[in-house]
Amino acid sequence: MKRVTLSHGSGGRLMHDLIKGLFIKELKNPFLSKLDDGACLNIGREKILFTTDSYVVNPIFFAGGDIGSLSIYGTVNDLSVCGARPLFISVGLIIEDGLEMKILERVTKSIKTATRLAKVNVVTGDMKVVEKGMCDKIFINTSGVGRRLENFNLSLDNVRTGDQIIISGSIGRHGVSILSSREGFEFDNKVKSDCAPLNGLLSRMGGLSGEIRFMRDPTRGGLATTLNEFVEGRRFGIVIDEGEIPVSGPVKSVCELLGFDPLYMANEGRVVIIVSKKASKKALSLLKNHPQGKGARIIGEIVNGYKGKVCLKTETGGLRLLKMLASEQLPRIC
Amino acid sequence: MKRVTLSHGSGGRLMHDLIKGLFIKELKNPFLSKLDDGACLNIGREKILFTTDSYVVNPIFFAGGDIGSLSIYGTVNDLSVCGARPLFISVGLIIEDGLEMKILERVTKSIKTATRLAKVNVVTGDMKVVEKGMCDKIFINTSGVGRRLENFNLSLDNVRTGDQIIISGSIGRHGVSILSSREGFEFDNKVKSDCAPLNGLLSRMGGLSGEIRFMRDPTRGGLATTLNEFVEGRRFGIVIDEGEIPVSGPVKSVCELLGFDPLYMANEGRVVIIVSKKASKKALSLLKNHPQGKGARIIGEIVNGYKGKVCLKTETGGLRLLKMLASEQLPRIC
Repeated sequence: MKRVTLSHGSGGRLMHDLIKGLFIKELKNPFLSKLDDGACLNIGREKILFTTDSYVVNPIFFAGGDIGSLSIYGTVNDLSVCGARPLFISVGLIIEDGLEMKILERVTKSIKTATRLAKVNVVTGDMKVVEKGMCDKIFINTSGVGRRLENFNLSLDNVRTGDQIIISGSIGRHGVSILSSREGFEFDNKVKSDCAPLNGLLSRMGGLSGEIRFMRDPTRGGLATTLNEFVEGRRFGIVIDEGEIPVSGPVKSVCELLGFDPLYMANEGRVVIIVSKKASKKALSLLKNHPQGKGARIIGEIVNGYKGKVCLKTETGGLRLLKMLASEQLPRIC
Repeated sequence: MKRVTLSHGSGGRLMHDLIKGLFIKELKNPFLSKLDDGACLNIGREKILFTTDSYVVNPIFFAGGDIGSLSIYGTVNDLSVCGARPLFISVGLIIEDGLEMKILERVTKSIKTATRLAKVNVVTGDMKVVEKGMCDKIFINTSGVGRRLENFNLSLDNVRTGDQIIISGSIGRHGVSILSSREGFEFDNKVKSDCAPLNGLLSRMGGLSGEIRFMRDPTRGGLATTLNEFVEGRRFGIVIDEGEIPVSGPVKSVCELLGFDPLYMANEGRVVIIVSKKASKKALSLLKNHPQGKGARIIGEIVNGYKGKVCLKTETGGLRLLKMLASEQLPRIC
């Protein structure tokens, strides 16, 4: 393609191809090539996790959150699912000339509340202002540094046939919340974003660390894209049971009304866990005992067949191939 | 003020007041309150330095560099002047829908060259795409992690009367390069940005670590603003000798022509060092022996009087108070 398009930012296929074909190719090094959500680094005697994300969500305030809390939780979650304890966050602001000071204050207060909830500190920052019309109100980059938890050894290389796949709660809430706010829809049961820090929930998993193979937060591109990232280039496949995937009534309604698929809708407070069959019941009950994991479900498993593919067992008994998000479903979802 | 303005992003007085009055106040913690270019963190047994910067420079390509190299060197330099060895860099891209792929490729290749020169690795990244008109071509955030060098103990608390102030080379080149590119000026002696990594040059200073009190790269707001940051709230002042400040002929000409002051023009490959009087000659000669330090000069000293102020001894023999940049001199300089 001759130009970068919105679809390149979707978290789906085009983005993956651009990242591999350009960034990984040019900037090649052992850390980057892993294509993980964060980089695991050895500094002296310590194992550090380092991650970054820019937030351009539109609108900046939405039901259940705003760009401030999202920017903190997103980075906290990237560190958490990589098996690290999130510690330190940087905040880089790009602000449009003329932004109301009240908005900046509200976003800053939201960052403050989020850091307290997630038990992290914003330790360094930067602010740039660009001319009116040269950015959309405010963009935030957060980077995060965490300490890798010794007992976790998370890698897709450890995945075995029969391993179970757990989702920590109902899917699609963040995407539907943004969509509703953006379109000005007012539904009776307004869907709130699931935007939340995962480190509290995942700290419950410490005792099962040896049995947990891999974790990811299904953000841009949704659950379907995350599952595809699990199997890409691997000698195993995934079969998911459609009937087991938790989707709330309101999310289902909005998606049906507007022609979106909840499987591809962004989440900002959910985690997908691949866990050994043996430990899966225990993992599920640990999750369910935490307020953020009440809706957890085992939704499928790792299979020997369908190598590199994700299959959905539909409620009508059929099998459907679930691909990675192919183009932009919703721009600027985070 | 009711709105954020371009002047809040200048690196000068308004930015300082906003950072203190809003961000530091709300997000208060011991790391952030130091207001350093980077945060010094203890993780387990290691001392880590962590820093972030967003780059919104306009134009993205300019004489002597581009947004790609600038984004790497800027973060490398922030780590270096804090007394750390830069190791790992994250790159967060915000791209405007429709950006030519060739431009993205050129920027990526420039990032690659810069990381090789600065001996750092890009280890993690993120890419967002926003609709046409919602950002200006491309913005880049880089965050950096470095290992603190044991022997350095850089703090303004260590500064003593009589300490000498060194600048590593002629000032104002980055600012004038951007200004010239932006206005489409074609001068005979085109000024190239000084955009360069400082870690090579500063590694020469290792032997003098005990004598070096503090270092800063005078970027946004220029040399005058950096010197004011040194004295703010301190029980010492600075006297600078105008005749000793290295400014190249072409930089002087452009500034005179357009009514800018080189003392407030941004630099992207210079360092200001406060060093003990005893070690100042040695430090100067070490700098001068490196290609990036050839133009180094002792430009002034720490004085007991003029507490919290920077005074310029003019070439005509007068004394002039040098204030922090008060408003926006040039927006989007980095």
